[in-house]
Amino acid sequence: MSLLVVGSVALDCIETPVARKEDVLGGSAVCFSYAAGFFVPVQLVGVVGGDWPEEHTKMLESHGIDMSGLEIQKGGKTFRWSGKYLENMNDRVTLETQLNVLADFQPKLPEAFRRAQFVFLANGSTKTQLQVLEQSHGADLVVADTMNFWIESERDSLLGLLKKIDGLLLNDSEAKMLSGELNVLTAARKILELGPKFVIVKKGEHGAIFVSQYDIYVIPAFPTDNVVDPTGAGDSFAGGMMGYIASQGKADGETIKKAIVYGTIVASFQVEGFGIDRLRQLTRDDIEQRLEKFRKMVEF
Amino acid sequence: MSLLVVGSVALDCIETPVARKEDVLGGSAVCFSYAAGFFVPVQLVGVVGGDWPEEHTKMLESHGIDMSGLEIQKGGKTFRWSGKYLENMNDRVTLETQLNVLADFQPKLPEAFRRAQFVFLANGSTKTQLQVLEQSHGADLVVADTMNFWIESERDSLLGLLKKIDGLLLNDSEAKMLSGELNVLTAARKILELGPKFVIVKKGEHGAIFVSQYDIYVIPAFPTDNVVDPTGAGDSFAGGMMGYIASQGKADGETIKKAIVYGTIVASFQVEGFGIDRLRQLTRDDIEQRLEKFRKMVEF
Repeated sequence: MSLLVVGSVALDCIETPVARKEDVLGGSAVCFSYAAGFFVPVQLVGVVGGDWPEEHTKMLESHGIDMSGLEIQKGGKTFRWSGKYLENMNDRVTLETQLNVLADFQPKLPEAFRRAQFVFLANGSTKTQLQVLEQSHGADLVVADTMNFWIESERDSLLGLLKKIDGLLLNDSEAKMLSGELNVLTAARKILELGPKFVIVKKGEHGAIFVSQYDIYVIPAFPTDNVVDPTGAGDSFAGGMMGYIASQGKADGETIKKAIVYGTIVASFQVEGFGIDRLRQLTRDDIEQRLEKFRKMVEF
Repeated sequence: MSLLVVGSVALDCIETPVARKEDVLGGSAVCFSYAAGFFVPVQLVGVVGGDWPEEHTKMLESHGIDMSGLEIQKGGKTFRWSGKYLENMNDRVTLETQLNVLADFQPKLPEAFRRAQFVFLANGSTKTQLQVLEQSHGADLVVADTMNFWIESERDSLLGLLKKIDGLLLNDSEAKMLSGELNVLTAARKILELGPKFVIVKKGEHGAIFVSQYDIYVIPAFPTDNVVDPTGAGDSFAGGMMGYIASQGKADGETIKKAIVYGTIVASFQVEGFGIDRLRQLTRDDIEQRLEKFRKMVEF
């Protein structure tokens, strides 16, 4: 089953209380793809500049990611994000954002990508996300991520997007911002009224909650005290989730619930290294083993 | 199996964004006892003043709570707490605390209570909690609650108490304060080194985490958007948990895990009314039904 992701491809500079790393491979589409790649082949659409190391493309391809949708603008520079995590490893400060080639990104889906059955619109401009939908032909499931910046600056476009997607993924403060509600469950229900069939609210170290007209699922995070770099946790959560859904070829409630658990597990590995370093050491079997460990922690 | 609780008995004044109630029956020992009363008979030790309505005693007795350990100081006034919840129903401001008869509370355990097999030291002065242990003979399981006030003001006594109890229950900010750690799991592990066999960290709307030398359990909260009054949620959580453990007569890991789920369910009802109003409408069957609903939300 084909899975398409459109989002950012980045070179990050990340500072934590114990280390600082430059030129870390990152971006929503990269973290998503690598996570999803444990479950199905992935089609990636994004843009980079002339500073993009070709070895990254090869490495991602070797993990089952079709990179033919990566546009390389030789004269430009790759999107760069620089941030610093505070002592608690949850709060962070953005030090610098260089949009570079991402500023005027016009996604162009290769012909073969237009019929993807599963589509993930990773965090990015709502206008970019809408452009993807215009080029996509009848996907079975479209899920979008968004964030506070787009909720504030592109609210009208976002409300239009919500009528065209199946699921929305966002964090708790964003769900409250979008809905104007203070309770997460009320917020999710109000967002359902805006169009999507389901809403998944990410609560970071507190897990995630899924809300549809029919069901509510609550999945805690996998507890860890080995947080090296939280960057991309939400994207790898989405990748694990969508990858599992695509591998099953269906998106009924029970499949999505289990997919959220896979997302949770992949994200718990993601934070254990800089960028996707920890994911690169993993096998699917490592994911299954931690999932069974998690089951023993949660089921009663 | 006998279950003893020692803690506060209060008349609260509670203000929420939608209502204000005076003389609400509350206090840690009351909320704990009522919650535990769905599972086993409970022995309550506490103190009230001449303003205590006798009808409360009768009502609690009719729910299986042995009130013979309630000391009535005719010349004094019952402990009163007055607080106001903010719009988000999570944050609250204490408007007034009148310790009254609780200020010099010296718990006296009736002879029959001294052999209780399960003991819960509800939130209160660490010195009071230690006095209970001096009078108690060889309980199978002793669990204590504490809070920021005692962690700051009675740290030495608290460190002494930790060496004498089996389990400690506290919320996430308190766990961080007590341990000096910023990660909840690291904090719980550090507290284990101070004496208790297990630590349960309550995270309010985000659920709870159990940590022992051997196991970790993570239980999310039951999602609700019908929060009327959160007062006593932590105490009814403890009551549901300890009540279930006492009803099973054992405290192995799997029993405690299921007990935390029962605590979660009872607490989810507790917040749906002022004081213990909602619990008073419940049957054990209502608890079982919501537990099964919760299982469908959580298990994968």
